[in-house]
Amino acid sequence: MKRILVSELLEFADGQVSIKGWLHKKKIMGGITFLQLRDRSGIAQIVVEEKAEVEKLRGLQTGTIIEITAKVKIEERAPSGVELFDPTVQVLVRVDSESPIEIDKDLSHKSDSLDTLFEYRAIGLRNPKEAAVFKIQSEILKSSRNYFYQHDFVEMNTPKLLAEATEGGAEVFKLDYFGKTATLAQSAQFYKQMMVGVFERVFEINPVYRAEMSATTRHMSEYISIDAEMGFIDFTELKEFAHGLLKNVVEDVWRKHESELTSWGASKPVLSENAVSIPMQKVHDLFEKHTGEVVEDRLDITPAEERFICEYAAENLGTEAVFVTEWPSSDMKFYHKKMEDKPELAERSDFLFRGVEIMTCPMREHRYDVVVKQLKDKLGVEPDAPGFKHYMQAFKHGLPPHGGFGLGLERLTQKIIGLQNVKEAALFPRDINRLAP
Amino acid sequence: MKRILVSELLEFADGQVSIKGWLHKKKIMGGITFLQLRDRSGIAQIVVEEKAEVEKLRGLQTGTIIEITAKVKIEERAPSGVELFDPTVQVLVRVDSESPIEIDKDLSHKSDSLDTLFEYRAIGLRNPKEAAVFKIQSEILKSSRNYFYQHDFVEMNTPKLLAEATEGGAEVFKLDYFGKTATLAQSAQFYKQMMVGVFERVFEINPVYRAEMSATTRHMSEYISIDAEMGFIDFTELKEFAHGLLKNVVEDVWRKHESELTSWGASKPVLSENAVSIPMQKVHDLFEKHTGEVVEDRLDITPAEERFICEYAAENLGTEAVFVTEWPSSDMKFYHKKMEDKPELAERSDFLFRGVEIMTCPMREHRYDVVVKQLKDKLGVEPDAPGFKHYMQAFKHGLPPHGGFGLGLERLTQKIIGLQNVKEAALFPRDINRLAP
Repeated sequence: MKRILVSELLEFADGQVSIKGWLHKKKIMGGITFLQLRDRSGIAQIVVEEKAEVEKLRGLQTGTIIEITAKVKIEERAPSGVELFDPTVQVLVRVDSESPIEIDKDLSHKSDSLDTLFEYRAIGLRNPKEAAVFKIQSEILKSSRNYFYQHDFVEMNTPKLLAEATEGGAEVFKLDYFGKTATLAQSAQFYKQMMVGVFERVFEINPVYRAEMSATTRHMSEYISIDAEMGFIDFTELKEFAHGLLKNVVEDVWRKHESELTSWGASKPVLSENAVSIPMQKVHDLFEKHTGEVVEDRLDITPAEERFICEYAAENLGTEAVFVTEWPSSDMKFYHKKMEDKPELAERSDFLFRGVEIMTCPMREHRYDVVVKQLKDKLGVEPDAPGFKHYMQAFKHGLPPHGGFGLGLERLTQKIIGLQNVKEAALFPRDINRLAP
Repeated sequence: MKRILVSELLEFADGQVSIKGWLHKKKIMGGITFLQLRDRSGIAQIVVEEKAEVEKLRGLQTGTIIEITAKVKIEERAPSGVELFDPTVQVLVRVDSESPIEIDKDLSHKSDSLDTLFEYRAIGLRNPKEAAVFKIQSEILKSSRNYFYQHDFVEMNTPKLLAEATEGGAEVFKLDYFGKTATLAQSAQFYKQMMVGVFERVFEINPVYRAEMSATTRHMSEYISIDAEMGFIDFTELKEFAHGLLKNVVEDVWRKHESELTSWGASKPVLSENAVSIPMQKVHDLFEKHTGEVVEDRLDITPAEERFICEYAAENLGTEAVFVTEWPSSDMKFYHKKMEDKPELAERSDFLFRGVEIMTCPMREHRYDVVVKQLKDKLGVEPDAPGFKHYMQAFKHGLPPHGGFGLGLERLTQKIIGLQNVKEAALFPRDINRLAP
């Protein structure tokens, strides 16, 4: 008989079907055995009464691959709305070892359980609630790419093996590359700006690397960065574009995965029609006024302020995502752009969502002479220095006004689902302590 | 005035428009200047007669960012079917340096010109024919993902930083990872098999790394691998799925990029309705019969045979892509599967397209005990060895029959367009000699 999926069972009510999958759970009550079979689409419940069939199940452990041929009966209380009965059981791959973790129960995500979670990742993900995190993540990727395609972007892939670190020095992984030293890319920054000169609009979704010594809930040494860059746009258009990306992702994942999101206790983010921007000094003022605390450093935003302003925006501005603007140009990157009318400020925004920054979203300085000057002033580097000369070529031969952003896939997944630690949103996380599985 | 794109000009015939982009070419004939402006959608031709406007163009080099406000006239001989006249020119970003390469002419792709091509990549790609390679590549990615989505796959991202090399030893990049040694992933092989136990069907498109000392037209040290793995399928279904992926990609890129493909002299690949398989020994026999040459090693396929059998299939079997099957199990990987009825052969196929192998497409051994034995026999490794134990967990707790493949994005792009060297299909290629830009 042709295999059907668990999600298709309802269409075969009162009929005979064949399904295949993993033994998910087995419960013996008197002479009757209740089975749960898991396939990629869901979980089916099967009632086994026939003695010969019950006998086949003896000793079988979770994970055993089975084929069930049985009759279908509507049963609203069962997981997929049906129950299978009068089955013929065929064991396809026998599993005799007990599962190292109980995958039919909610797994602990407490911080002291995470090591166990990751150690048995390939097994733990067989719990459908765990797998849902990555089905949602797959949808975030699909939705993001669709948004880029709709806006006429070209997808690109740029190398992660670089001749030298172009930004920060210490937090870079180094390796021997046929006798030379290569570094692992921290971002696609230079490449995406260079490619604005070719395609105007480019995106890239690829791993990037940070050799940070931090063991926090926010840091990983390898993560997936959703990078975009657009030419011939202004700062307002850039923020609207980034805001639109988040809205598009939220709509798509809620339309397609509402039940999985609900199983995690997630609520659908409230997002305003248009981008909401708040200048940094106003964030400080609001924070001081509402908390009574004094902001010591008025040239940066603290994590406490990030959390505060998101709560403030949710309560007062009808959005859980807000752009903090008017950052001081004193500590901007050499490729950022100063505001024309207030050069002490940069045309930069940080896009905050549910209490954390999910992307830095700035305009870039596009004029060759100005970039050369900022490069010398900020880094003391000449435009023909190795690691910079190919980048500077693009400016020398004409780049339009442009801006862009990088968005961490795992952090976005974390915030959409409401996970405590960003590593829970990585299939196989990498940090200072973990390099396997 | 609102900016429109060059591709939209035809809709504005006899009207007034504003376009923005790069000065692509400037030709002075008598008192008249002919301009070409490039934007992301195409190239527009502008006739400048007014003296004051001609004056603005003096000294401007290719790459200058300009805005042109002008009238539109149908002109079938012009690149985008229209000509702009009576323009007002506004220089947005002035470029004074001469372009290091002439981007309005076909660039040389001869082997001794490749270094120049890559050195000025960010400029050379401003030639629309060059950019077309990567617009086609972007479409290959989109088409591949759509095919996976249609077939119920989950997209995943697995780490490229690994604790140890799980396959081949010498061709691995190593790096210091917080005092430990990490290696860069050569493939997503282990992870995708582990995830069959969770999602049944997974794909991943990410960079992989090979520290190969070869400086050939076929090798890069970093490339994009399109990886897929499917559970609950048999060998025939696996080959049909892989064949279907290629067909889907070919249809999509030809539908959307026919003119660009034609500019490269590409012909649309002829592909049979269903997968065509030829056992290895038959390939040898056909090769010997048709060439008169003797095949020395009958346990492998030579590059000459790969080319031959593709030509043979194109002429006789109505397809430019063919699966070579019935490989000897003597040199199979430990995770490959022997044929049930002929254990001296493996359930493996190499998918050849236009003279080269584009993917190895085998079934995997899914039975825990057999994998343990093959692991010991082939590699002398115990199932709980570091680098293997998490992989073996998945088998121990039940994996169904499964198979999959990895497909190099650049090689596929190369063969579809008809490029000589795989590096021409990488935006910024990496090989033994090249680590920049």
